[in-house]
Amino acid sequence: MAFDLVFFGGTGDLVWRKLMPALFQAYRHDTLPEGGRIIGVGRDDLTDEQYRQQIQSRFEQVEGDKRPNPEEFARFASLLCYVRMDLSKPESYAALSARLAERETDTVVMYLSTAPSLFTTVCEQLAANGLNTAKTRIVLEKPLGHDLASNRSINEAVGKVFKEQQIFRIDHYLGKPAVQNLFAMRFGNALFEPLWRREHIANIQITMSEELGVEKRGGFYETTGALRDMVQNHALQLLCAIAMEPPINAHADAIRDEKLKVLRALKRWTPETLSQHVIRGQYSAGNVFGHAVPGYREEQGVSPSSSTETFVALRTEIANWRWAGVPFYIRTGKRMASREAHIEINFRQTPHEIFKSPVGHANKLVIHLQPKDGLELHLFAQGQSKRGEGSGGATLSPVHLDLDFDKRFGSQRVGAYERLLLDVLDGRLNLFVRSDEQEEAWRWVEPILQHWKNDSIGPRPYAAGTWGPSASSAMIARDGFCWSEEI
Amino acid sequence: MAFDLVFFGGTGDLVWRKLMPALFQAYRHDTLPEGGRIIGVGRDDLTDEQYRQQIQSRFEQVEGDKRPNPEEFARFASLLCYVRMDLSKPESYAALSARLAERETDTVVMYLSTAPSLFTTVCEQLAANGLNTAKTRIVLEKPLGHDLASNRSINEAVGKVFKEQQIFRIDHYLGKPAVQNLFAMRFGNALFEPLWRREHIANIQITMSEELGVEKRGGFYETTGALRDMVQNHALQLLCAIAMEPPINAHADAIRDEKLKVLRALKRWTPETLSQHVIRGQYSAGNVFGHAVPGYREEQGVSPSSSTETFVALRTEIANWRWAGVPFYIRTGKRMASREAHIEINFRQTPHEIFKSPVGHANKLVIHLQPKDGLELHLFAQGQSKRGEGSGGATLSPVHLDLDFDKRFGSQRVGAYERLLLDVLDGRLNLFVRSDEQEEAWRWVEPILQHWKNDSIGPRPYAAGTWGPSASSAMIARDGFCWSEEI
Repeated sequence: MAFDLVFFGGTGDLVWRKLMPALFQAYRHDTLPEGGRIIGVGRDDLTDEQYRQQIQSRFEQVEGDKRPNPEEFARFASLLCYVRMDLSKPESYAALSARLAERETDTVVMYLSTAPSLFTTVCEQLAANGLNTAKTRIVLEKPLGHDLASNRSINEAVGKVFKEQQIFRIDHYLGKPAVQNLFAMRFGNALFEPLWRREHIANIQITMSEELGVEKRGGFYETTGALRDMVQNHALQLLCAIAMEPPINAHADAIRDEKLKVLRALKRWTPETLSQHVIRGQYSAGNVFGHAVPGYREEQGVSPSSSTETFVALRTEIANWRWAGVPFYIRTGKRMASREAHIEINFRQTPHEIFKSPVGHANKLVIHLQPKDGLELHLFAQGQSKRGEGSGGATLSPVHLDLDFDKRFGSQRVGAYERLLLDVLDGRLNLFVRSDEQEEAWRWVEPILQHWKNDSIGPRPYAAGTWGPSASSAMIARDGFCWSEEI
Repeated sequence: MAFDLVFFGGTGDLVWRKLMPALFQAYRHDTLPEGGRIIGVGRDDLTDEQYRQQIQSRFEQVEGDKRPNPEEFARFASLLCYVRMDLSKPESYAALSARLAERETDTVVMYLSTAPSLFTTVCEQLAANGLNTAKTRIVLEKPLGHDLASNRSINEAVGKVFKEQQIFRIDHYLGKPAVQNLFAMRFGNALFEPLWRREHIANIQITMSEELGVEKRGGFYETTGALRDMVQNHALQLLCAIAMEPPINAHADAIRDEKLKVLRALKRWTPETLSQHVIRGQYSAGNVFGHAVPGYREEQGVSPSSSTETFVALRTEIANWRWAGVPFYIRTGKRMASREAHIEINFRQTPHEIFKSPVGHANKLVIHLQPKDGLELHLFAQGQSKRGEGSGGATLSPVHLDLDFDKRFGSQRVGAYERLLLDVLDGRLNLFVRSDEQEEAWRWVEPILQHWKNDSIGPRPYAAGTWGPSASSAMIARDGFCWSEEI
């Protein structure tokens, strides 16, 4: 399949940190379709060869086994070329047009790894230059707006030029093997579905924590915050993957229809729930692994009186037959105690206690997304009997069954961007977000943003290197539960 | 707690192979109550010291880390003493009586590790000598009869002298940690119970296979066979543990009431099911791990025209609300392809196929009893995607979650006889079989024995080192299933 894959923002961070290494992995795995070109687009004045060298020198910074040897890279680099463009200038597009006209292709992918403010212009210019043909696909990187209105205006502008099935909105969490496995686990096994409902599940927790602060992105983060950066997209997509009804098949629209239904069923906010069920925090100076680190307001590019949240914890419910009354907790933040992303399905306790169980413990299924990628099923077993306990009175001990996907599937594992790029080339939309999903997520998030705007209290401080403000623990404790690390 | 533990058959195989090592382990684990005496009873003329030496020299044959060092053994051996008796002679019992009268005790345990033909005499003589006091407990080793009538007559004779709560009928399978864990797993976790029923389970398989033949026990085995030796007791007890309703508590009678209900609900045999759902086999000469081994009819003590079965495979159902229509398969034999005991809970396939699954595979939970002791939960996950499959079309790969109890609990694990002996000393009946259970099991087994008596075909031959006659596979195949090793 002859394809041209065009990276707008071709000299940017995302391209050399994520996209090029992902393509290189696909090339190594022999899954990248043959006959392709990878066209970097940028403002620098580079020849194809210079672009290859730039990418190569940046590959040197790539860690571990993804770093290529020179021969290997040279073969891959022969796919790369470069077009100099100023995306804001209509006359620039002729150069791209000419380059694409050099040969026949089956598919042209326009990957917009640029500032979202350019999305509309780029789409208009692609159309003006006849580059929005039926074989064209467009990939949009977040953020797609900062609220419902701006998201809708981007979707409308892109929608004027491309049909929905040509538009690939990336949420790289959906490309993670563990998230795909969440679908496989739920719908490829008969075991989980009967348990996957309010009768058996006490609560569900989604945690996405980072140890890092905002680093050099303070300026960007000031206008974004954790809610827009993590909750509106990644956390809600994970929530949908957990909570959705079984789709009729594994095709994109069947899956996206079910995810949309979940978003529509999210409980609407009230003044009470907004003030009690959403906690925002901001990190103050603290210690991370023994190193003193500054507070958010001391970071470069951040206002000393900033009220941007670097932490959000919230509680919601899904108002449908399956989930009514089951709390879903979402928690995400920067400068937290560890870097991890996981989903905890906490089952109800046994209805009748025959054995003595450790207090406050129940079965749980933990789906690890990061840093490891696997499943843990937490059970109780009879271990050692203490003297005088005998067989009947023995106390149960916690045990867990483990599955480490990396160990199981090893080097065959396909990374998130690798998966997503291959799916774009294949025209598979399963793991991409439809405009109506995105808008529904914004519709649910907006009242929180609005509430914060009018709320004089501002984010609660938490020391860097902790699990966020204590209000987060208090919120979940009111339901009689606790965050996993507090057990 | 001062106890006297009397081993009738104190110089026999079971005592030095199993019971003494188990007591020694309990002694090492510091779980053996203090102030005890262990009194061997036998026909040989031995002093206490000679008995200790005999036991010690036999301990030398014990493998691995259970072998004591001399100082350790000497401390333990101080608990041992010996009484010479001919159990068939009433006048012998005075010696035991005198020995027991030497000191005050809280508990006296009479462990009948003798030929069952002596059970009645021993009980009568214990009564005649006033040794059946309220503090006395009696332990009976299998076989407790060879059919319903003989079992009942033993139970009646023992029941004249001891109350049911003084009688400890050993089924050492119930002492295995994995079997106790089966109870803990089912009733100490909220996860399994909702799935543990006909709606979600396709079939259940119990396999207990041995590599060994009848060894030197041909004479005994000729009058026993696999059905009496393994199915009537061990296999049915495992079946009860899997299939029973949740008991109201973990006390002995609550558990035994529920097990009895399962035995009563076993489908009664009909001429059709007897001929189609019970397969008996007898090993012929073959190869076990590359060594030629003789057939059963060539074994020492076995008739050259023997029709004793060394293999049974059968299918039954439990006629109750939970299990109606779910086949339970039991399979046991000697000289099979490997030594193992496990229970397989085979779940139904997904009702609707969204992903491509490997043909004929479904989720299963394997409970390993022997040689390893643990759980395996077999699931399907999305592993590698083949080129062109993309995310949606990916084929699922089998994966399993593992829990190895030995690794988890390590040296704290309590062996079967150790557990059972401690329970006898503690007066806990949970893991012992009540007379009505035993009789109900015989009632269900008898029609099979009767059918075989009138059946001129005899057992089907199978080559040593295989999984039994092909009729066993054919039986299960008629239901659309297969034995696990055939997948």
